Amino acid sequence: MSYEISTLMNNTKDKLVTLKLRNTKTIQGILKEFDIHMNMTLEDAEDVSAEKPEKLGKILIRGDNILAISMDKD
Amino acid sequence: MSYEISTLMNNTKDKLVTLKLRNTKTIQGILKEFDIHMNMTLEDAEDVSAEKPEKLGKILIRGDNILAISMDKD
Amino acid sequence: MSYEISTLMNNTKDKLVTLKLRNTKTIQGILKEFDIHMNMTLEDAEDVSAEKPEKLGKILIRGDNILAISMDKD
Amino acid sequence: MSYEISTLMNNTKDKLVTLKLRNTKTIQGILKEFDIHMNMTLEDAEDVSAEKPEKLGKILIRGDNILAISMDKD
Amino acid sequence: MSYEISTLMNNTKDKLVTLKLRNTKTIQGILKEFDIHMNMTLEDAEDVSAEKPEKLGKILIRGDNILAISMDKD
Amino acid sequence: MSYEISTLMNNTKDKLVTLKLRNTKTIQGILKEFDIHMNMTLEDAEDVSAEKPEKLGKILIRGDNILAISMDKD
Amino acid sequence: MSYEISTLMNNTKDKLVTLKLRNTKTIQGILKEFDIHMNMTLEDAEDVSAEKPEKLGKILIRGDNILAISMDKD
Repeated sequence: MSYEISTLMNNTKDKLVTLKLRNTKTIQGILKEFDIHMNMTLEDAEDVSAEKPEKLGKILIRGDNILAISMDKD
Repeated sequence: MSYEISTLMNNTKDKLVTLKLRNTKTIQGILKEFDIHMNMTLEDAEDVSAEKPEKLGKILIRGDNILAISMDKD
Repeated sequence: MSYEISTLMNNTKDKLVTLKLRNTKTIQGILKEFDIHMNMTLEDAEDVSAEKPEKLGKILIRGDNILAISMDKD
Repeated sequence: MSYEISTLMNNTKDKLVTLKLRNTKTIQGILKEFDIHMNMTLEDAEDVSAEKPEKLGKILIRGDNILAISMDKD
Repeated sequence: MSYEISTLMNNTKDKLVTLKLRNTKTIQGILKEFDIHMNMTLEDAEDVSAEKPEKLGKILIRGDNILAISMDKD
Repeated sequence: MSYEISTLMNNTKDKLVTLKLRNTKTIQGILKEFDIHMNMTLEDAEDVSAEKPEKLGKILIRGDNILAISMDKD
Repeated sequence: MSYEISTLMNNTKDKLVTLKLRNTKTIQGILKEFDIHMNMTLEDAEDVSAEKPEKLGKILIRGDNILAISMDKD
């Protein structure tokens, strides 16, 4: 079953994702890579929860800080 | 015994579930997939604990943020 | 020794249990299933610590949120 | 060495123990069973830290909530 | 290398140790036993951080509550 | 997939990285080494979140304190 | 890669290190021993973050309390 979730995440590669973090921040960026711990790299990442969105560039997020990942939100 | 719980969750696939999160939020959505860590994907997810319910679309929730899952609530 | 505790919990199957959670909530319900992580399913669950008890129906509680389980309380 | 500690706990079986919990509560009861995670069952348990001691009956405490166990206190 | 630390702790057996706990309490007592998780038993333990030192008798401390152990302090 | 992330981090060796820590601090330095837990050593590290940036020299950061790593930020 | 970090720490043996702890304390001392969990023993340790530095003597610090280790700071 674990398999299905990585499939799901694979389908999201190179797409915009919205990460809700445990610290209440919201990060957006293009999903590039991830591992089984949900560590992931984003390109063109941005902290969209700051009053003035903060550009973060290419970042690696540790998975254990993640609350939820919005895959699409059209 | 672990087996029984995944059976239970399997019976809930494609049904509406209500997640109580550790951060006191309540998320509703259609359960699509899950793994042994209780990581799960929901479709048509919504944060129903916000003053004005927030549409979240298709999301992946990390299992370690979950307090409880209401399976039905008729 | 682990064996004895699952025996104990097995004897509690289909009986009313009272869960004290780490977040100070108290949940009551009929214990149906559990696994070695103390993840468990309850039927007719109710949050009895809320000012006005909240019906939760059939729920799955993640074991790592549990502080203690009262087995009986006669 | 782990062996010695279970020996110690075995010697405490059927005796009164005082548990200091991480949440600052103090629970007393007769130690019946325990496993390697320090999950344990108590009989005639009581929350003696509450202003008015609360009877808890037969309970199972998750070990990861425990700060310390007083074995005797004569 | 792990070996050296247990050697160090072995040399401390039957000696007075001072435990700094994560919850800011300070416990003193005679170290009797310990395991690889730093669970340990103390005799004649005392909470010396309380305004009025509290006698705890023979206690078992869960290692994950420990911040540091002062081995000697002459 | 885990492989890709270490590749990514390898490409960052000897380059300036910006670490967002869970405690809200921001540390900058030249990435020298890291392991699978994201423990890492930085040279010429500096706490750039302090009012007056604090020089830290050569440091080893425990990976479990890390929220995110900005790889570049041009 | 894990290897390189223990090499680094080995080079620091018998030298003065500064530990930043998660609880915001800063401890200085001579690094004597450590294991793969970053548990470590220090000699002549001192809490230099207290208003009046507190002598701690020979201490064992649990690695999971450590935020960062400054290796040198000349």
